[in-house]
Amino acid sequence: MFARVALIGMGLIGSSMALAMRRAGLAGEIVGAARSAATRDTALRLRLADAMFAEAAEAARGADLVVLATPIGAFGAIAAEIGEVLEAGAIVTDVGSVKGMVLRDVAPHLPLNVHLVPGHPVAGTEHSGPEAGFAELFENRWCILTPPDDAEAAAVDKVAELWRRMGAKVEIMPAQHHDLVLAITSHVPHLIAYNIVGTASDLETVTQSEVIKFSAGGFRDFTRIAASDPTMWRDVFLNNKEAVLEMLGRFVEDLTALQRAIRWGEGETLFDLFTHTRAIRRSIVEAGQETAVADFGRRQPAQGE
Amino acid sequence: MFARVALIGMGLIGSSMALAMRRAGLAGEIVGAARSAATRDTALRLRLADAMFAEAAEAARGADLVVLATPIGAFGAIAAEIGEVLEAGAIVTDVGSVKGMVLRDVAPHLPLNVHLVPGHPVAGTEHSGPEAGFAELFENRWCILTPPDDAEAAAVDKVAELWRRMGAKVEIMPAQHHDLVLAITSHVPHLIAYNIVGTASDLETVTQSEVIKFSAGGFRDFTRIAASDPTMWRDVFLNNKEAVLEMLGRFVEDLTALQRAIRWGEGETLFDLFTHTRAIRRSIVEAGQETAVADFGRRQPAQGE
Repeated sequence: MFARVALIGMGLIGSSMALAMRRAGLAGEIVGAARSAATRDTALRLRLADAMFAEAAEAARGADLVVLATPIGAFGAIAAEIGEVLEAGAIVTDVGSVKGMVLRDVAPHLPLNVHLVPGHPVAGTEHSGPEAGFAELFENRWCILTPPDDAEAAAVDKVAELWRRMGAKVEIMPAQHHDLVLAITSHVPHLIAYNIVGTASDLETVTQSEVIKFSAGGFRDFTRIAASDPTMWRDVFLNNKEAVLEMLGRFVEDLTALQRAIRWGEGETLFDLFTHTRAIRRSIVEAGQETAVADFGRRQPAQGE
Repeated sequence: MFARVALIGMGLIGSSMALAMRRAGLAGEIVGAARSAATRDTALRLRLADAMFAEAAEAARGADLVVLATPIGAFGAIAAEIGEVLEAGAIVTDVGSVKGMVLRDVAPHLPLNVHLVPGHPVAGTEHSGPEAGFAELFENRWCILTPPDDAEAAAVDKVAELWRRMGAKVEIMPAQHHDLVLAITSHVPHLIAYNIVGTASDLETVTQSEVIKFSAGGFRDFTRIAASDPTMWRDVFLNNKEAVLEMLGRFVEDLTALQRAIRWGEGETLFDLFTHTRAIRRSIVEAGQETAVADFGRRQPAQGE
């Protein structure tokens, strides 16, 4: 599909794309860029890329597809760097979790004859870095594309086809709507997970060792997503401020009502909510976005360590 | 260890105890009580119990160990029922998620020659009912006992030994402290999971179908614990009100500070918290209360449905 793909950034997503593209034979050559020498060495050792560069512009030179896969806070500077070397007709895409800011930070640096098709694969684990990648990460997951109004249809189709061949399903929507949807399905959930883990580690009446020992009662599920990459998530909250604050406001409003129901012993209010949420879980399992395996198979002793 | 064990309630915990006790040969006879005829039939079909009764008192008659394993809101009425038939020297324990209320609701109904040793195995899945049980549920998990000050040491030791032989580790603490520890490690996490799922299903700007489709970004982790049994959790919040409201207050206080950091673009505050929480995750994995397997193995296609 592409003669030379440049992956700028070799974290969980970049390395998984490299593996998925190789498996499906989608790229003649894959090159990468990473600031850290250790990441470059690892990427070469794992054969994620045919060549690795310290500078994004070196990787992007001669590429017909450039993928921005660093934390989103770096996108603007990278776009400024690569803007000068991009060839006419090249496609630039990204995998960032916020999409409005791509149009704001990246688009102004690109020549007019280069196609910008922002994207976001809604997939991930709590692990980071080039060794965390695996080719199956995108299978049966959604990738959302948010092309600007004037995007060329052929370029959008080509990026959509790339994701399909890596196993993903593709949805197209405006960047602003993406940022609202992800605020509630991903950003606010991460924020409250980070927050409860922070609260729990900072109490006088309950020790941290007690929190760790008795985490199987529910807390440990939150620590998984609160173990996600700090730089990536800092950048998400700084760049999707309005949507996150709006959804967070709704969350707090609902939580206040729930708090009140507990204070006044309103059992029926609690029961109704808890029944309703159970049905949503069922829909997610039915939609293939989750397995129904109890406890995510944590009960198998073979997986324990 | 016991000649006749009566399990009052045959949900996830009751059925798992039956299987774990059988496997380790801890009971001469296991009998159960369940209000619903369907549950009684299922329990007999799965050989969870040698006999099943509709009335708790019938099961408790002649038992040397009685385990209360219903939602905690029913404990008071059950204790009143079985109080009259209990034999001298019998031990009564429970598996409820709140412990202060056991001393309040159960103790007054028991004869003086019966030993009350409240307990709470910190283990579970989001599934409910007699078919959800499995013998390994308690392995490597903690069971907290909260005996009253005047409890007989021999009875406490016997209940502790029962849990150890079912695979659990045992910790003893005052009921009031238990309720604080669990409020932060289990009750508030469940409450905010229920709350975010409720918020997400009730927006005008984002459809429910979008929430379901794009849940892999973090939201689905919350739906798992928000799929827990509604009756059980209603009773938890109604019976651990003070500790839950206290911990919820701390959570909201911290969340407000985080909200402010986002509004004012304080990246360093966010980064520091996100780094700190990652370390706590590591401690939980090291303590054997969680596996480090990325994404709980959800990536294996074999588990998908």
